[in-house]
Amino acid sequence: MTQNDPRQTPLAQSLPATVPFVAPERMEELRGAAFDARLGANELSFGPSPKALAAMQAALAGVWKYGEPENRDLRLALAAHHGIAPEEITVGEGIDGLLGNLVRLYVNPGEAVVTSAGSYPTFNYHVAGFGGVLHTVPYKGNFEDPEALIAKAQEVGAKLVYLSNPNNPMGSVHSAETVEAMIEAVPEGCLMVLDEAYTEFAPARSRPELDTSDRRVIRFRTFSKAYGMAGARVGYGIAHRSVAQSFDKIRNHFGVNRGAQAGALAALADQTYLAQTLERVAEGRNRLAQIAQSNGFVPLPSASNFVTMDCGRDGDYARALVTALDSHGIFVRMPGVAPLDRCIRVSVGLPEELEIFAERLPLALADLA
Amino acid sequence: MTQNDPRQTPLAQSLPATVPFVAPERMEELRGAAFDARLGANELSFGPSPKALAAMQAALAGVWKYGEPENRDLRLALAAHHGIAPEEITVGEGIDGLLGNLVRLYVNPGEAVVTSAGSYPTFNYHVAGFGGVLHTVPYKGNFEDPEALIAKAQEVGAKLVYLSNPNNPMGSVHSAETVEAMIEAVPEGCLMVLDEAYTEFAPARSRPELDTSDRRVIRFRTFSKAYGMAGARVGYGIAHRSVAQSFDKIRNHFGVNRGAQAGALAALADQTYLAQTLERVAEGRNRLAQIAQSNGFVPLPSASNFVTMDCGRDGDYARALVTALDSHGIFVRMPGVAPLDRCIRVSVGLPEELEIFAERLPLALADLA
Repeated sequence: MTQNDPRQTPLAQSLPATVPFVAPERMEELRGAAFDARLGANELSFGPSPKALAAMQAALAGVWKYGEPENRDLRLALAAHHGIAPEEITVGEGIDGLLGNLVRLYVNPGEAVVTSAGSYPTFNYHVAGFGGVLHTVPYKGNFEDPEALIAKAQEVGAKLVYLSNPNNPMGSVHSAETVEAMIEAVPEGCLMVLDEAYTEFAPARSRPELDTSDRRVIRFRTFSKAYGMAGARVGYGIAHRSVAQSFDKIRNHFGVNRGAQAGALAALADQTYLAQTLERVAEGRNRLAQIAQSNGFVPLPSASNFVTMDCGRDGDYARALVTALDSHGIFVRMPGVAPLDRCIRVSVGLPEELEIFAERLPLALADLA
Repeated sequence: MTQNDPRQTPLAQSLPATVPFVAPERMEELRGAAFDARLGANELSFGPSPKALAAMQAALAGVWKYGEPENRDLRLALAAHHGIAPEEITVGEGIDGLLGNLVRLYVNPGEAVVTSAGSYPTFNYHVAGFGGVLHTVPYKGNFEDPEALIAKAQEVGAKLVYLSNPNNPMGSVHSAETVEAMIEAVPEGCLMVLDEAYTEFAPARSRPELDTSDRRVIRFRTFSKAYGMAGARVGYGIAHRSVAQSFDKIRNHFGVNRGAQAGALAALADQTYLAQTLERVAEGRNRLAQIAQSNGFVPLPSASNFVTMDCGRDGDYARALVTALDSHGIFVRMPGVAPLDRCIRVSVGLPEELEIFAERLPLALADLA
C-alpha cells in the first residue's frame, strides 16, 4: 500500500501502484520453486543468434563506457535493412519504453486514446500514466476490429488509436490491405500506433509496405521477440521523420544498454538465424495446436510465437486452469478481459517444455474436474 | 531540423531537439579517428569488478528472458548493504532515467525547480521536458551554494531543489553537516534531490547518514561511476518509502537490462574491488593534479573520479583548449556556464591515458599561444 506524497502532481497522486504484469520470477517465489516450463511471457526460448551472443559478450569489455546516445550504428543498419532513412527510426528501451514516450508526446491530460478491450495492458498503463482517457472497443471474434477502432477514434476525437498486428493476446493477424485501409481512415489529428512486435512470425502479406512519407502511423518493432533478446531491452519505432525525431526531445538519451546495442546490430545481421527461428517457432505452434486439440481445446490460428487456446468455458474456468498449471510447474498467461478470457495463451518454448506441457495439461484439467 | 507535429502536446512542440551531450563516438566520427585518451565522460576506465563481468557474461544465456521487473534481488542486496528496507529503494535505467521520472512525479507544468547554474544539464533537460520552470543560483566559488539554493527554493516555491554532492563538474564536496543543514532547511512542499553519483569517491564525512524516515530528500546513486558499469544503465534512488514506491506508478517496469541486474548485484558484492578502484582513482587524481600544475593550471580539490583544472583565463580560452586537445586525440569536457567555464574537466583514465594527456597538453597549449 503506497502512501501518497501530497507534493506530487495531482495526476501522480491519482495513479494506482499496480504494475502491468506479475513477473514469473515473483510467481516462482510465491510457489517456492522454479517453473519447469516458462511459456507465459512470449519470449523466444531458443535464444538469440550465437552471433548476437558473441557480440554482447565482446561488448562487455566496454561496459565501463556509456552507450552511444543516438543509437546511430543500429539506426543505420535498421535503415539499410528496411530501405528507409535513419532519421525515420527511433530506438528505445523496448517497445514499452517507446510507448510511454509516444503517449507523453501526443496526449494531453484528459485527451482520448482508443484501443481494443483486452489488448496490450502496458499501452493502457502509459495512457493512464499521462492522464489520457482510454476508450475501448470490443474484439470482433478473435480479431481486433479496425472499423470499430476508427469509428471510436472519430467519435471521441482520439489522439492515438492502437492496433497490434499480429495481435497479442489472441495471435490473430490482419492482412496488409486491412491495415492499410485502417491507416487511410485515421481521423485528422490522430496518430495510428501499429504495434508489430510479433510481425516477423507472421506472413509477409500481413505487413503493409513501409511508407515513411505517411504521417498517420508509427510502427513499432522489437528485438525482444523473434530476435530473442527480451532481456536486452531494444525496440524501435518507424515513422515519418517529424514523428520519429520528436522522441529525441524527451527520451533518456543514454538509456539503451551498450551491449544491447551491439547485440541488436549482430542479431539483425544474422537473417539466416532468424529464418531458422521462424521455422522452429512454426513447428512449436503446430505442436501446441496438437496438444490443444487432444485436450478438447480449440487452438486459434496464430501468426505469433504463441498459441491461444479456446478452453470452451468461461473466464473463471480458464483462470482456474492457469492456476492449476502453475501448481504443475507450468507458467502460462491468459487474456484479461471477457470474452477473450475463455482462452489460455501458451508461448512456443523449447520442444522439451512443450512435452512437459503436453504431459501436465491433462493433470491440471483433471484437478479442475 | 525537426519539423513540428501539430498533433503533439503544446509542451512537446515547444521543446527543442537539443540533446544533453554530444557523444564521444559522434566526436570521433567528426574528427575521423578514435580518441587516444577518453577522459571526458567521467567513466571508470578500469572497468567493473571481474566478478561483475563474469555475472554479466553468465547472464547472457538468459538474455531471451525479460528482466525481473521489480529489480527485487538487487533491491534486497542494496537494502542489506545500506541497512535500509527494499521498499525504500527504486531502481532505474541510470540516474538520468530516474531524474526524468522524478520530475514527472513532482512537477506540474509551470512549477518551479531550483538548481545551480552550470550543474548537471540532464536534470535541467528533464525539468524542461515536463514543462517545469528552472531557476538557478550561482556557485559560490567552486561549490554549489546550499544557502542560496534554499533561499531561491523558498522565494519561488520550488517543488524540487537539486544538489550534487560531490559536485559535477567542479569536483567539490560539502560536508555531511552542510548537507544535513540543507535538508533541515528544505521548504515545506519541496523535495531535495541529492545526486550522489560520485559519492563512493568522496570521504565518508561527506555522506549524511541514510535516514529514510525523512520525506524531505531523495538520494541517487549509480553503478555507472565507481562500479564502472556506465554502459549497463543501473541507478537507484533512496528515499522514504512513500517517495520511492511512487516510481512504480509510472516507470518502465521491464526497462532494466537483465544482464545489468546481475552485474550490479555482483559488483555490489565485490567491495574489495571497489576499495581497489578508489585507490587507483586517488592515484589518478594525484597524477592529474601534477599534470595541471606543471602546465600552470590550478587543479581543484576533487572528491570524484575527475579533476577540474582552472586554466586561469576565460571560457573562450578553455573552449579553444578543449578543441585543441580534441585535435591531439584527447577527449575532455568542460563546464558550460561562466565563471565555471574557465576550467576543463579531466576524468581519471588509465595510467597510460594520463601520460598521453601529460604529453599532449603542452602541445595543445602551444597551439593556442
